[in-house]
Amino acid sequence: ALQHKLDQLHPADVAYILESLRLDDRLMVWDLVKAERDGEILLEVSDAVRQTLIADMDSEELLAAAEQLNTDELADLAPDLPKDVLQDLMYSLDTQHRERLQSALSYPEDTVGAIMDFDIVTIRDDITLEVVLRYLRRLPKFPDHTDKLFVINRDDILQGVLPLKRIILNDPETRVGDIMSTDAVVFHPEDMSDQAAMAFERYDLVTAPVVDNNRKLVGRITVDTVMDIIREEAEADMLSLAGLREEEDFFASIWKSVQNRWAWLAINLVTALVASRVIGLFEGSIEKIVALAALMPIVAGIGGNSGNQTTTMIVRGLALGQISGYHMKALLKKEMGVALLNGLVWGSVLGMIAYLLYKNAALGVVMMSAMTLNLLLAAIIGVVIPLVMNKLDRDPAVGSSVLITAITDSGGFLIFLGLATLFLL
Amino acid sequence: ALQHKLDQLHPADVAYILESLRLDDRLMVWDLVKAERDGEILLEVSDAVRQTLIADMDSEELLAAAEQLNTDELADLAPDLPKDVLQDLMYSLDTQHRERLQSALSYPEDTVGAIMDFDIVTIRDDITLEVVLRYLRRLPKFPDHTDKLFVINRDDILQGVLPLKRIILNDPETRVGDIMSTDAVVFHPEDMSDQAAMAFERYDLVTAPVVDNNRKLVGRITVDTVMDIIREEAEADMLSLAGLREEEDFFASIWKSVQNRWAWLAINLVTALVASRVIGLFEGSIEKIVALAALMPIVAGIGGNSGNQTTTMIVRGLALGQISGYHMKALLKKEMGVALLNGLVWGSVLGMIAYLLYKNAALGVVMMSAMTLNLLLAAIIGVVIPLVMNKLDRDPAVGSSVLITAITDSGGFLIFLGLATLFLL
Ligand SMILES: [Mg+2]
Ligand SMILES: [Mg+2]
Ligand SMILES: [Mg+2]
Ligand SMILES: [Mg+2]
Ligand SMILES: [Mg+2]
Ligand SMILES: [Mg+2]
Ligand SMILES: [Mg+2]
Ligand SMILES: [Mg+2]
Ligand SMILES: [Mg+2]
Ligand SMILES: [Mg+2]
Ligand SMILES: [Mg+2]
Ligand SMILES: [Mg+2]
Ligand SMILES: [Mg+2]
Repeated sequence: ALQHKLDQLHPADVAYILESLRLDDRLMVWDLVKAERDGEILLEVSDAVRQTLIADMDSEELLAAAEQLNTDELADLAPDLPKDVLQDLMYSLDTQHRERLQSALSYPEDTVGAIMDFDIVTIRDDITLEVVLRYLRRLPKFPDHTDKLFVINRDDILQGVLPLKRIILNDPETRVGDIMSTDAVVFHPEDMSDQAAMAFERYDLVTAPVVDNNRKLVGRITVDTVMDIIREEAEADMLSLAGLREEEDFFASIWKSVQNRWAWLAINLVTALVASRVIGLFEGSIEKIVALAALMPIVAGIGGNSGNQTTTMIVRGLALGQISGYHMKALLKKEMGVALLNGLVWGSVLGMIAYLLYKNAALGVVMMSAMTLNLLLAAIIGVVIPLVMNKLDRDPAVGSSVLITAITDSGGFLIFLGLATLFLL
Repeated sequence: ALQHKLDQLHPADVAYILESLRLDDRLMVWDLVKAERDGEILLEVSDAVRQTLIADMDSEELLAAAEQLNTDELADLAPDLPKDVLQDLMYSLDTQHRERLQSALSYPEDTVGAIMDFDIVTIRDDITLEVVLRYLRRLPKFPDHTDKLFVINRDDILQGVLPLKRIILNDPETRVGDIMSTDAVVFHPEDMSDQAAMAFERYDLVTAPVVDNNRKLVGRITVDTVMDIIREEAEADMLSLAGLREEEDFFASIWKSVQNRWAWLAINLVTALVASRVIGLFEGSIEKIVALAALMPIVAGIGGNSGNQTTTMIVRGLALGQISGYHMKALLKKEMGVALLNGLVWGSVLGMIAYLLYKNAALGVVMMSAMTLNLLLAAIIGVVIPLVMNKLDRDPAVGSSVLITAITDSGGFLIFLGLATLFLL
């Protein structure tokens, strides 16, 4: 019964079910899936879950699944396949498809070349719409998402695009060349895929041609792939800010999760140790005024929170292309203004509370000054770190937040305990 | 010259330029934009920037801009318009359009009703494709993104959908009813828009019909809107985790930014004060062993980081629908396993360091135990808080992280200083 149900579901729905099951149940359901659907379902599941499914299949099953896919789909799957299966697979392809697969695999993961497909319908510009329609009706398969045909010459050079809409709305006698549009957005295989996604959003595209440097048509991008990229990009930034290296299978082993998270914890331990040694420098002061120990985490913590707010905003602005290194001065000025205002207001509140708790006016003033200075420090590094990382061509979402917390913690302790040692002892 | 350039740009590109300019330059460019393009550009800019542009326009300009838009676009703009302009606008519409606008405005922002448009091309099922084609050619405007026509009966009840592809590939004599598809994905105006976006991703849709409870066709959703929603959803989660209430205009005034961030800082101050009072309880112990002051932030900080990793993962899993409250037990077991492993490994390392720094073996053991216990606490609340918030129908991304840091800070200080007081004094 379950098997029958599964057979009727869309592959994306089966993938969703597999993703929300624990490993043992997941493999049980996976065994029930008809072998001829293995390929399309492997394409739909998340990377983490795909690995658990592939680990459960033998070479023969994998080869059979791979043979159901076309070249661009194979390229998506290939990095997860065992080496020997991939080799057998390459061997089984004809020359055109092998070359396509090799070229698709040769593009870095985050480029247009890695996400394009080869489901292109091409026509010449000197035929009439009537001929186009006859040609389309004889095609063995009309690719999904086709909203336009690609017009090429005999050397495969892109001449323009012909939206389906125009085929429908114009007289059958019209020549393609007379109604094709020649200013369509085109991409190159080396373009970054997140930039292409941004163009899809901005110009509301459904498909777009990919051409090489000679304007030779090599593939196309479709909006369904772009939606996946937008989702993955935004998620990768969110996970990176929390120090998670990749998406986790929620029901993976403890050991796998530890591996995904340990690097971040190790870095945090080192920075926490540094902060701890900063406090160690002032043990003499703390022995004399033990209130310092109770108040210092407030200064450090608020700095970290405020710095991370700034960085989150900037990471997002960089991802959307709304800000660039060029704006550093304006952003610094603004964030420092925000920090100064917050420092004076909240610093005064806390200074007052410190005074009331410990009946020590000078301690209150030190508290307020330290808060303000640490918020200013947080503002500066919250702006500078992501912008500099971006300038160095590194992902500003990775590691920014740990760096900022490290600096606002150590800096906060240093500022607060330093001021206290200078003025209270 | 600049004006001429602007006139030739796509409205989305003009919007992008406006977004990346400082307020004074932005308003200067905005003045150069032709009045007849104001409407389409206001639609494209981000909410934060839109407010700055609208603030710069008088009622007459706003009314003129609004009159360029169709009903669903007006509905997007309406919440940002001054009340008197909106009233004048309502008054200027004919009955059908006024009713549509009022109904679009009546749906909550996060529902399908708020994002649907009315650019629907409808046909009957008893006509032939030839008649369909004649009808399409006579339409005053063929809407963007149309990949299918909607087949309705004389009561506007949806009978099926006819993909353009089938019009092209089938014989002109074919009747619509014989080739339409009757199992298309449909939405209701009350559906949540993020759920609809998930369905678009899953089933790779370009457009989909929206029907009421009697299956009467009321509108459609298009993939370009869905892309915007996916982007906004993911960003909203990321901003929420950092306590930012809404997107900020990067070049907005300091005062606006302070307003966006102050609530979070205020909450953080309160939780930091609580943590500080927890430390205050143990001032006697710190006076005797001042090393405790230097070591306690490590225990608290690592707990916070680890708890936030857990929560980030769970917020994401909830957003994708991969986990639900029903999985709480399995997730708890796993996260506690991860925490135990990390606590024993990293706790031992830190215990050893504490021993080496302070030549006190008992202090090392207390350090290790406190680390492990605080990581377990972090794991439990990191799982429970977002799942419970989700069960209470609250957004798990909002406030989770501040709650977790509050508990791991106070809890960390309490555990570490408590154990130290019990076993070291
Ligand atoms: Mg199977
Ligand atoms: Mg690929
Ligand atoms: Mg768009
Ligand atoms: Mg648009
Ligand atoms: Mg595709
Ligand atoms: Mg990124
Ligand atoms: Mg203007
Ligand atoms: Mg709307
Ligand atoms: Mg999809
Ligand atoms: Mg798909
Ligand atoms: Mg639309
Ligand atoms: Mg959300
Ligand atoms: Mg902290």
